[in-house]
Amino acid sequence: EENMTMNLVERLRPKFTIDNELIRAFIAELFCTGFLVVGFFFSLFFLLLFLLFCCFQFGGECVNAQYVLSQGKNNEWIGISVGWGLVLMMAVLMGSRISGAHLNPAVSFFQVTQGKMNWIRFLVYVVAQNIGAFLGAFGVFCVYFDAINVFEGGNRTVTGHTATASIFATYPGPFLGTFNAIIDQIAGTLVLCLGVAAITDRRNEIPSFLQPAWIGALLAFLGMSMALNAGYAINPARDFAPRLFSLCAGYGWEVFSYRDYKWFWIPIICPMIGGVLGAWIYEFFIGYHIQDDAALE
Amino acid sequence: EENMTMNLVERLRPKFTIDNELIRAFIAELFCTGFLVVGFFFSLFFLLLFLLFCCFQFGGECVNAQYVLSQGKNNEWIGISVGWGLVLMMAVLMGSRISGAHLNPAVSFFQVTQGKMNWIRFLVYVVAQNIGAFLGAFGVFCVYFDAINVFEGGNRTVTGHTATASIFATYPGPFLGTFNAIIDQIAGTLVLCLGVAAITDRRNEIPSFLQPAWIGALLAFLGMSMALNAGYAINPARDFAPRLFSLCAGYGWEVFSYRDYKWFWIPIICPMIGGVLGAWIYEFFIGYHIQDDAALE
Amino acid sequence: EENMTMNLVERLRPKFTIDNELIRAFIAELFCTGFLVVGFFFSLFFLLLFLLFCCFQFGGECVNAQYVLSQGKNNEWIGISVGWGLVLMMAVLMGSRISGAHLNPAVSFFQVTQGKMNWIRFLVYVVAQNIGAFLGAFGVFCVYFDAINVFEGGNRTVTGHTATASIFATYPGPFLGTFNAIIDQIAGTLVLCLGVAAITDRRNEIPSFLQPAWIGALLAFLGMSMALNAGYAINPARDFAPRLFSLCAGYGWEVFSYRDYKWFWIPIICPMIGGVLGAWIYEFFIGYHIQDDAALE
Amino acid sequence: EENMTMNLVERLRPKFTIDNELIRAFIAELFCTGFLVVGFFFSLFFLLLFLLFCCFQFGGECVNAQYVLSQGKNNEWIGISVGWGLVLMMAVLMGSRISGAHLNPAVSFFQVTQGKMNWIRFLVYVVAQNIGAFLGAFGVFCVYFDAINVFEGGNRTVTGHTATASIFATYPGPFLGTFNAIIDQIAGTLVLCLGVAAITDRRNEIPSFLQPAWIGALLAFLGMSMALNAGYAINPARDFAPRLFSLCAGYGWEVFSYRDYKWFWIPIICPMIGGVLGAWIYEFFIGYHIQDDAALE
Repeated sequence: EENMTMNLVERLRPKFTIDNELIRAFIAELFCTGFLVVGFFFSLFFLLLFLLFCCFQFGGECVNAQYVLSQGKNNEWIGISVGWGLVLMMAVLMGSRISGAHLNPAVSFFQVTQGKMNWIRFLVYVVAQNIGAFLGAFGVFCVYFDAINVFEGGNRTVTGHTATASIFATYPGPFLGTFNAIIDQIAGTLVLCLGVAAITDRRNEIPSFLQPAWIGALLAFLGMSMALNAGYAINPARDFAPRLFSLCAGYGWEVFSYRDYKWFWIPIICPMIGGVLGAWIYEFFIGYHIQDDAALE
Repeated sequence: EENMTMNLVERLRPKFTIDNELIRAFIAELFCTGFLVVGFFFSLFFLLLFLLFCCFQFGGECVNAQYVLSQGKNNEWIGISVGWGLVLMMAVLMGSRISGAHLNPAVSFFQVTQGKMNWIRFLVYVVAQNIGAFLGAFGVFCVYFDAINVFEGGNRTVTGHTATASIFATYPGPFLGTFNAIIDQIAGTLVLCLGVAAITDRRNEIPSFLQPAWIGALLAFLGMSMALNAGYAINPARDFAPRLFSLCAGYGWEVFSYRDYKWFWIPIICPMIGGVLGAWIYEFFIGYHIQDDAALE
Repeated sequence: EENMTMNLVERLRPKFTIDNELIRAFIAELFCTGFLVVGFFFSLFFLLLFLLFCCFQFGGECVNAQYVLSQGKNNEWIGISVGWGLVLMMAVLMGSRISGAHLNPAVSFFQVTQGKMNWIRFLVYVVAQNIGAFLGAFGVFCVYFDAINVFEGGNRTVTGHTATASIFATYPGPFLGTFNAIIDQIAGTLVLCLGVAAITDRRNEIPSFLQPAWIGALLAFLGMSMALNAGYAINPARDFAPRLFSLCAGYGWEVFSYRDYKWFWIPIICPMIGGVLGAWIYEFFIGYHIQDDAALE
Repeated sequence: EENMTMNLVERLRPKFTIDNELIRAFIAELFCTGFLVVGFFFSLFFLLLFLLFCCFQFGGECVNAQYVLSQGKNNEWIGISVGWGLVLMMAVLMGSRISGAHLNPAVSFFQVTQGKMNWIRFLVYVVAQNIGAFLGAFGVFCVYFDAINVFEGGNRTVTGHTATASIFATYPGPFLGTFNAIIDQIAGTLVLCLGVAAITDRRNEIPSFLQPAWIGALLAFLGMSMALNAGYAINPARDFAPRLFSLCAGYGWEVFSYRDYKWFWIPIICPMIGGVLGAWIYEFFIGYHIQDDAALE
């Protein structure tokens, strides 16, 4: 298609290729998780800026800001869930050839329990995912520095009508009890990892060029069905690292102490449990029963 | 891609594989129908919780709950129809290699009439589908136990503004007469099974890795066009088993006696008729006229 | 996958296969156009019934019917455009192996001008498309007979707030002049047929299993961008035959005399012009310049 | 599929094929960019006409035009972002076999920096892209001449409630500072070109028939996440040429002098920087680390 034989990209390749496979995987996990987080947060910022924009354009003369706020959330939710699905598809597409594009400690962890990964590689992946998510949150904060200031009038706030902390990490609604929150995070990650296990199982013969799109569609479905309880973190790195960043950015210790320390660890620990459950449930109920002669080899 | 030669999943495979093909199919139908029902009901719960969330966050100061209710339904309908299409795609993707992933007695029944399945297998499938749907409904109820209590104040109700019975089974709108309801369920299942017959017909040469996605798109279309009359049950197992569960869960006998017993059997019997009509109409008008030399073999 | 060797469908095949290729094509065009029209109108009915449903459920206490009407249209438009795209995909998927699935006299006509079809076949296709569209409209009318009666109180009306004639055929908004309407229909069909020519051009090497989906996506795009001026009929059969049906169904002669006979012929004649323009513009600007050595053969 | 051996299209082919590859590429870039711009602007017009339509139909009796305006924007945004994604997919699909379908000077420019294109070809492409965008804007203006007049009462206006200049070129919201606008355009094009580089990298093995769809999905994601700050121009030709056209069409010099000349050059220069950054960042973090033995050849 394009004459790539001796173009600059190809000439520079030998100089920049990294020989060590684990370092390559580290970079891919870091970069793609960062990309994912940037995409996630841009989607959320879009919503906030959209509301800002409406307020600026029409002033106080026609709309009640709170009303718009509820309106906007209503209307754009489909955009957020589809948007997150698309950004996950892009991130998986980029990283899958290098590191497998887990992008989620829960996915890496269930692979450890299945003997597909050892603990050293697991640690490398988790560190990369958290650094990527932290840098992604930092990038978003730089780009939207003014917008955040305008929106909340200079006060970083975790709760209330002008709170922007929920852009960086999830905070559940008031109606959700701690036990229910634990169930919610386990169930969400269970469905995610069950689907990932099904999509990536060689025996289901899904072409590798379609797998990122199917995984993105799975996340879009989760966004349409399991997002509201507690914002479907279902990913320890995507929730913890940006929460740490928001602490550094001046939101105060409340990002961790929210609900008397009864929340922040839930999207860290529960997805690990849910991921393992989902992946093994897939094997016991479906994977083990696909006839061997139907497998690719 | 991944070194799966001797990982734990593969080592355990021989121990957990089931030899009997019919039992494998039973498990796959049960599991995937359960997955489907969980996905369906999560989508509906999302809507309800979304409204709850709005009420909690903005209190009585800005929104009228009923208005929000109608608003929410408006805005999120696209999310529900697309979400259901995606969850069906995932469920078919998982089960298709083992049982064919009918997930619907109407689909199993038209295959009996076409001589592709015998009656014993039909019974096994239908039992599995109903058990799966019942367990799926139970799973959703456990996860959202508190949310249901908050929403309806502890009273399980079948009709009225705070009714949650419609999460488990369909209840038609007041404008729909019995005769029209019968036509509606027959027509919906007819379109569904006509489409399924077209998508799975070998002569149309749709790759097997795309068929789950196309079937999901078909359901999404049905959700965008035929859902409102009576909630597009178009699946006896998806409607009857959760209705039975809601009886057990304390919604009372009204779940069956609704409309003087003039509703509950309609989404059980009519889809069977519509499914057979749709599949045979496809054969007579399209399937039989695709030239033989174009077939794959 | 399934043992189809001697099932009932296969045993009946030789008895019902039609030898004459033109008759097969006639049936396929008729059936698939009917399917398409049923799908189109179900999408529109969905909208109307949705509004009805809201009114019934919440009564006069919270919503102004007209406000809901405009709201509903807003909110569901994405559902309609995506829904129509999906039903076109299904209809093309079913008919493409038999008749090519034109489903639109404008598409058939540009193929005549390109020497891919003769006039006799063109006439057969157009007759089939119109009969299919008429029967499709009849089917929808039967299913929704009560709903139409409830909605407009028994009076079939072409214009005004409770008009349902616009379900069967298109009626442009008041701001649209006749000349602009002509341009609009030509431009819409031009984009449609340009896209169809690009998607079906062998030289673009789009697999035949993806072409129905791409054509559906094209129609969804048109629904998102060119639908409002005059409802994107862009298909003489889809507009004329249901209009004739609505005359028979008691909407009165106004369905043709609307705007002093300055409308009904526009979506009949203009798409023929636009289709030819679009298909040839594609060839002159793109098709002729794709290098021969890149073609499949 | 179709007997194309000696039809009119094929007979005319030798007469209209252009031998010079660069001229062919010029025509393809011009035509497809024009198609893209027509599609983009039709999507925006759809929104405006939709609002008009609501006003006409329901008059002053039920809705406040400004309220509708904000409502409409809310509701249809998903339609615009998906619609733009689909039209980009169609445009890339048409042009990719001839010119590579850059359709964006930023994409052409990063290919120059990567040694895949020389400066002469770059100039040819940029000229074609700008002429295409200008002609596309002209086409839309012709089709919607009356609608624009009705909407703004004959006064071409750049700012305010009835402004239609924003259909042709982007104008940022008032809350956006110049520095932030620069960052915004760089970041948007960075994500776009990073994604394009990933999707078109042979080593990622995405089939060429899927690449246009994936690029369209990427733009849809950008529309869902980065559109509001300044309308995601992220394409110098798509912004500058229609802006020039709107000057010719009577909107006055304000289209360039907006914000004291502190805006119009930002979507021209910044995307060039962002595109180069994005494409090289992809190579350094991902592209160079995909193992060679996994490449297609």
